[in-house]
Order: sequence, then structure tokens, then C-alpha cells
Amino acid sequence: MAGGSPPFIARHTDQLFKTAQLESVKAWIGDPAHGALPLHARVQRAIRQLILDGALDAGRPLPASRALAGSLGVSRDTVEAAYGQLHAEGFIERRVGSGSFVSERAQRLTGGATARRGGSGRHEAPRLSQRGSALFHGGGVRDFLAPSAFAPGVPETRSFPLQTWERLQRQVLKEHGTQALLHSPPQGMEALRGAIADYLNLERGARATPERVLVLTSSQQALTLCANVLLDPGDRLFIEDPAYHGARKAFEAAGLQGVPVPVDADGLRADLLRRAAARPGESARAVFLTPSHQFPTGATLALDRRLAIIEWAREHQGWIIEDDYDSEFHYAGKPTACLQGLDPQERTLYIGTFTKSLFPGLRIAYMLLPPALVAPMTVARTLMDGHSAPIPQLTLARFIEGGHFGAHVRHLRAVYAERRDVLARLLRQHLAGVLEPRVPAGGLQMPCLFVRDLPEREALDAARRAGIDLLGLSALYATSRRQAGFLMGFAAHAPYELDAAVRKLAQVLRTLDRPRAR
Amino acid sequence: MAGGSPPFIARHTDQLFKTAQLESVKAWIGDPAHGALPLHARVQRAIRQLILDGALDAGRPLPASRALAGSLGVSRDTVEAAYGQLHAEGFIERRVGSGSFVSERAQRLTGGATARRGGSGRHEAPRLSQRGSALFHGGGVRDFLAPSAFAPGVPETRSFPLQTWERLQRQVLKEHGTQALLHSPPQGMEALRGAIADYLNLERGARATPERVLVLTSSQQALTLCANVLLDPGDRLFIEDPAYHGARKAFEAAGLQGVPVPVDADGLRADLLRRAAARPGESARAVFLTPSHQFPTGATLALDRRLAIIEWAREHQGWIIEDDYDSEFHYAGKPTACLQGLDPQERTLYIGTFTKSLFPGLRIAYMLLPPALVAPMTVARTLMDGHSAPIPQLTLARFIEGGHFGAHVRHLRAVYAERRDVLARLLRQHLAGVLEPRVPAGGLQMPCLFVRDLPEREALDAARRAGIDLLGLSALYATSRRQAGFLMGFAAHAPYELDAAVRKLAQVLRTLDRPRAR
Repeated sequence: MAGGSPPFIARHTDQLFKTAQLESVKAWIGDPAHGALPLHARVQRAIRQLILDGALDAGRPLPASRALAGSLGVSRDTVEAAYGQLHAEGFIERRVGSGSFVSERAQRLTGGATARRGGSGRHEAPRLSQRGSALFHGGGVRDFLAPSAFAPGVPETRSFPLQTWERLQRQVLKEHGTQALLHSPPQGMEALRGAIADYLNLERGARATPERVLVLTSSQQALTLCANVLLDPGDRLFIEDPAYHGARKAFEAAGLQGVPVPVDADGLRADLLRRAAARPGESARAVFLTPSHQFPTGATLALDRRLAIIEWAREHQGWIIEDDYDSEFHYAGKPTACLQGLDPQERTLYIGTFTKSLFPGLRIAYMLLPPALVAPMTVARTLMDGHSAPIPQLTLARFIEGGHFGAHVRHLRAVYAERRDVLARLLRQHLAGVLEPRVPAGGLQMPCLFVRDLPEREALDAARRAGIDLLGLSALYATSRRQAGFLMGFAAHAPYELDAAVRKLAQVLRTLDRPRAR
Repeated sequence: MAGGSPPFIARHTDQLFKTAQLESVKAWIGDPAHGALPLHARVQRAIRQLILDGALDAGRPLPASRALAGSLGVSRDTVEAAYGQLHAEGFIERRVGSGSFVSERAQRLTGGATARRGGSGRHEAPRLSQRGSALFHGGGVRDFLAPSAFAPGVPETRSFPLQTWERLQRQVLKEHGTQALLHSPPQGMEALRGAIADYLNLERGARATPERVLVLTSSQQALTLCANVLLDPGDRLFIEDPAYHGARKAFEAAGLQGVPVPVDADGLRADLLRRAAARPGESARAVFLTPSHQFPTGATLALDRRLAIIEWAREHQGWIIEDDYDSEFHYAGKPTACLQGLDPQERTLYIGTFTKSLFPGLRIAYMLLPPALVAPMTVARTLMDGHSAPIPQLTLARFIEGGHFGAHVRHLRAVYAERRDVLARLLRQHLAGVLEPRVPAGGLQMPCLFVRDLPEREALDAARRAGIDLLGLSALYATSRRQAGFLMGFAAHAPYELDAAVRKLAQVLRTLDRPRAR
């Protein structure tokens, strides 16, 4: 049926399709961009395009399938398949004995065709909502992707016991079978909630039960939930200054008004909460803080301040949002117990994540909630993204219960402590007089202050061009109290890698320094 | 060091700890609820509790570790470990030669202790934000968990080629190694975006490129993103009536005002959009619709209406949100091409998901976006939950590229077509005169109208008590045009299971019918 068509059939096609239209169909079919489509789909799409463009009017007869097949050099079956689909979608009508016609239904298009073509200035800025525009211009939370040198918050994953993980996952799939493919309850799988509660009680001094754990994908999701469920647009929230940018942006996106509270060597200045509360209009409905290792300063919140914050929450019915993002990694003795465990008033929402302690691609974090907030938070979560994947949840539950989580964290704690010390030594060696490292007692990153006046923005850009990914300290401050410098991640890099990267950074900063040198 | 303590040491402990306090510590240690904690942590936690309760004043000396060890019948090392942690957390001070004392820093607590105890009416309703409260009382999106009979939207997962999936995942881990544990780019892994774009071009007649695909966790997340990035609180949005409840709730949560547009056998009444647009104050900035199989009626949107909607969007700079949630499953010929492919104006946001076509626990969905919306949507997504897990993305890319996705969908299409027909036959056999099935041309569920006046709420409750999970139709309507009945899922159940469930449902509805029979 295919192949070399007799010339009279080609002529007949020409009567129904103008030559230009036939050429347009041929060009569409031959376009390498459409090479993934089967031939009949290409023929169908090409004719559809002619109709959409208004090049074929309603009621216009189409060539007989045999004639068109001849003109295009394809089989008649191919054209029949294309016509069948055009008919099914309503683009053409087929009348027995008289062939195929462009459908009246498709007519509407013709009028708009010119306008449509004229108006396709495609990449104009779209009209977003005000909040959408604010979100966009806020820039979102930039995760550091590849573990390029000094990317803060990125853990060492090269030593992750992947084989153990895979073995446990095979067990999960063997035991649960295709049941593991179904929905997770929106609060999370019970096995994981139990394992998390045990861990929090044992290692973090929390008051946890499985019923109070809500499994999420990320601490970012937890922050967004807190902002929306606890507070309304315009509500005030105390926030550390400097603070984690992801938290600040989540609160801004929810329309909250952040009230910066300075941080010193003992963490958040808790006395200022109660002082603000005493003045009308200056208090806030919640406080966000990172008590274990303040982000970015690394300070551990002192006990009296923890208690003062709990008192503030009790007196003013405030909420305490405790982001305990990397408490597992504390290098001087055991980490301090979490604030949640000290709060008998159930005003604390505790946020934990496995992004730092295991790996970023896992997408499991959680909140430990006051009992009365479990249902509202779970319901709100169903509207954001439904639930979390069950297979990683079940695998993680076994990983924790089998002691692998504890062993992995213990191993990395020693590794990170060494890397922290190596980085501090390298900075003192190669960047003395430029950067002053503030060695933290825990966490995955080290704040380093500029000793002399360097342009932070230019330094960050120059470093990025050299393949070094640093977070600037200035941008983490809400007020003019800001200190310039870098937040340098040390966890994802072996000592020899840190050595190479510090040397490169020293070179970058020297070039930067030169034109400004007196 | 441990064991039976000489009586004189026990007496010495009594001088520092009142008997009641010692008993309280012993009770805490012996409480089975604390059995998971190691002994030293229990001792530490028990003393911490005494301090938090104000039972031990600041400055009060603690028993020597040896004395307390004797009194408690534990080793001195255990007490030393407990004291060490109390000291590290700031609860006690240790002075060489004179022992341990309750720290001044912990003093602040004592004052609040009574109030704290008095005020713990723990399960009072918490004060949520107005929006949090509205979210909570809206009830969220209830996913149907176990595949109980007739749960709508749940696919058959028992025949999922899990071994193939596991094999591909092993390949991914072998090739990418621990690199696969790191962050995904927030827009999604390139391999998956490419596979999705090819699929959409080939099977859905879309205009897709990998650069325009945004990988998400769920269509619920896509809806929340659309609502927030495109529209502001109070903005109007056309929405099908009846409509998918998850979409309506996502829009309500974002503060939008839904404008219901009736649906008939050809889908959304597109003529009403342009008519509304002609009257000031009645237009809307976006339209939400499910063109392939309208949820819940199952109607396929006719071509002229598709074109009319595109014209409306062009004329009024409106956005078209096309939710193509189960278009893969069309039982009469090929599914109609998507609306996105017909829209040369780039006003259409196409939402697709693998929840129905593969499995709900996968947590992968996506949007195909106008080029100018890719960056704003990606940025907004980083604030919601960062990014999607890389390993399932890479595995899914291989699953699609290897032809397994197409084969699985083709297999299930035949299975579901049969189940749809079986359910219709069973309903006509056992529930004639009660339920009238409206057999859809595609999708995973069948709307069934009440033939005579049954109380829908009571019928749903009675069915649920009998283990049958139905979605009521009435609640899906925004206006009083509502029709009572059920939306019955048929995809997840073999014919014999459908048979058993229909018989049970017939029994339930008969009991319900009897007292009301005339």
C-alpha cells in the first residue's frame, strides 16, 4: 500500500491540500525534533497544526487516505491511523462515502489564528500573584547541590552504609510486598514514628510518644506548616538574628512579621522576649530558634535561657518552634537535651531531620508535637502534599531499630570533629589576617569572620567562579548588626580536599584583596 | 563499686535528698515507661525532673555520687555519668572538693513550678491561626488507605512489576553510588524530566521539553503551588462543579474564591467562561479543570470547548490549570490529546501524576509549565519542601525509557476496562432501582446516582461500618445543583472482590432503605 505513488493521485491531493500545506506536513514529519513520535502520530500532529493555525477551514475536505499516503510516501494504514485519531479528538468528521472534512467544532480557532500568532512574545514576564512574585524575588532556598567545597549543611555521604540500607529495603519489600506501594497514613508509618520517639527520648531528652510524631519530607516543610497553622498574615514571630535563611523565607512567604532577637555566645537573648512582651504591641505569638547549635553562630542555648523561653511561652501562650537540625553532631561531650523535654506546658514544636544525619536525598524529617496540634498539623499536611513515601519510612525504621543509625552517627561524629579541627588549622595557616574561624562545639559548618574589610558579595562570587560554594554571613542578619564573613561547611570533605580548597580560597581572596590594598 | 550500700551512706544521702525525693527518683527509674533509657540517663532524667519541679532549690548540694549510687543500688559510674550530663546541660555545678550543687541558672524555674503544675489542662483546643483553624475544620484530603472496596482513585498495585523496579533501582545505585544520596536539583533530575517530556509529546500530544517540566511529589503539591504563585487571596478562579475536593480545598486554603462552572456530558460549560468575562466583576484569573475524565462525572471535554477555553485565556490573560490525573486509562480508543498541546499562548499549566498510573507510595508527580513560569514555580517549591528524592526519580526515568511504564499501563488498561464493565453489570444485577451507574469512558472510578431518595450521609456511614469506603457525590458540588450518589472505584479490585463487595453494599443499602420504605 505504501511507496511510490502514481502521479495522478499526487495531483488529486494537491487539489485538496495546497502545495504549501503539503510541504508544511512533510516538513513537520521530517523535523528531527519530532523523531521520537511514531509516523502516524507525526502525520496526525502535522494536520492538527494546519487546522489549529487556521490554514484548513471548517468543512474543507481532506485528501483520501490513499492519496495522502501516496503524496507523503507513507503507508495508507499510517494515514488511516492519523485520521482516526483526528476524528476521535474532534478535529475532523468522517462521512461514509464522502471522506473526511475539517470539523465545525474546530472552526472557532480560525478567527483567533492571526492574533494568536501575533501575540506570542513568549518569554515576557508572566503576571504572577503578589505573593508569587514576592516568593520568586525572594529567591527561595538554594540547596548546595554537588558537594562542592564548603557547601554548608551537606553531610558526608560517601561513607554511608548503602549496602546495609539496600538490604533493609529488600527486607521491607519482601515482607510488605506490594502493600508498601500504597499510601502512607498522612501522619507517617507507625514503625517509623515509634523508632523516632524512642530515639528522641533516649538521645535528645525529649518527651516523645509515637502518637505525637508527624513524619514529613523536610524541615522546610515543617517550617511552612508551623507558619501557616500557628500564625496568620501580619502576626509577629521572634526569630534569631542572624537566622537560618530557609526559616526566615518560609515565615515571610506565610506573611508573618519577623521580630529579630540578637544572639550571643549563649544563644538567643531570651531576656528580650519577656521585655518585649511587657510592652504593648511588641510581643509575638511564637519564637523560632535553633538551640543545639545556633544557625549560623554555632552557639548552644544556655539552660537559664531555655527555661526563660519556656516561661515566656507559658505566660503569653506563645509557641516555641525548636529546629534541632543537626544536634546529632556535637563534639564536646553529649549534646544538650532538647528544649521540648524541659517544657511541661506543651508549647514546644520540635523539628528534626534526617537530611544532615543520613542523607539529603532521603526526604524524611519530622515534628514532635503537643498532643493538641497533631490533628491540625496532619490535616494541613494532607493539603500540601498528601503523605510521605512508605518504603523509605519502613527502611529507615529498621535502620534505626537495628542500631545502624546510632553507629553511623557515632562514626561521623568522630570524622566531623577531625574535619572541623583540620579546617580551623588550615584557615589559621593560609588565611590568617583575612578570616577568623569561630570553631563551633557542634554542627556541620563553621562561621568565619572577615578580619579586615573585604567585600563579601565579591568574595562569594569570585569563590563561586573558582568552584567554591560559600554562604555569606551578612545575608543571614535581619538588622544592621551584621558581621561579614563566610559560613563554611566542613563535613562533606576529607582533610586532603579541605586542604586543596582552602589553598584555592586563599588564592581567590588574595586576588580580590590586591586592588584594594593600600 | 555498686551493690549493697552500707547504711551510713544511705543516711548521708537522706540528709541531702529528702526521703520523698529519693523515692521519686527511684520511682522514675523503675517506671516501665522509661525502660528504653539506659540507667544513667534514667538517673539523670529523674534528678532533672526534681529540679524542673522546683523540689531542689538552687544552691542545694546533691549527694556525693558514691552515696547516691548506694541509695539507689546502682554503680557509682552510673551516677557519675548522670551528674556529668546534668553539669553539661547546666542543671548542676560541680566544685572540686565540695561536690555538686543545683545551678543558679536552673533557679528561674522554681517560681513557675506551681503555676506550671496547675495550668496543665493539656488537651484543651490549642489556639490556631485563623487559616490553620479553617484548614483543620476543612478536614484536609482524606486518602483512602488500604484498598478497601470502592476506594476511588486507588490503582491495582498487586500486579506492579516490583522485581523490575527493584532491578532498575539496583542499577541506579550501582551507577550513581552515594551520589544518588545527595540533593536533587529542585526542578527534578534531568533524566526524569527528559523521560516525562518524551512521554507527554508521544502519548498526550503535548508541547513538552525537559526544561519545562517541574518534578513534584504529588498533584496536590502542584495545585497548592498554582494557587499561591498565580493567584492572591480573594482572587477568583473558575472551577468545575462538581469538582475534585482536593483541588477545591487547596484553592480554599490559599484564600481563593472559587466560581463554580457547571459540567455536562461534554465537560465544563466553556461558554459560561466568556459570558462571565463579559460582565464586570464576574470573570476570574484562572480556570481549573480535568479535561480527560472530568472528576467525578467522567466526561471528556469536547474539542470546541477546549478551544473556547484557550480563547478565553488568550483574551483575558487567564491561566488554565489542566489536571490530567488519570488520562492513561481510557477504554474507548486512544485518549484525547491534552489541552496544553492545543494552546499556542502558553497559558496552560499541565499537571500529571504517577500516583494512579504506577503507585501512590512513589510520590512523583509533575507540572509541564509555560517557559516563563518554570523559574517562579521552582523557587516557590524550594520554600515548600526543597526537592524530590533522587533515587525514585532516577529509577522511574529508567522504568519509562525501558518501556516498562508503557507496558504496565497497557496491561492495566485492559484489566481496568474489564473491571469497569464487571462493576456496571454487578450494580445492575444487585442494585437495580437503587443505584444507576454512569459508565465512564476512562478513569478509575464510576459515578453512580441514587435512583430513589436515599440519605447519602447515612448510606456512606453504614457502608463504612461494613468495611466499604465510598466517596459521596453531593459533597463534590459547590452549588445546590448537586446529585446524590457514590463515586465508586473499581481499579484496585478483581472481579470476585467486586462481586463480594457489591453484594455487601446491596445488603447495607437494603437495611438503610427499609425503615424509610412506604
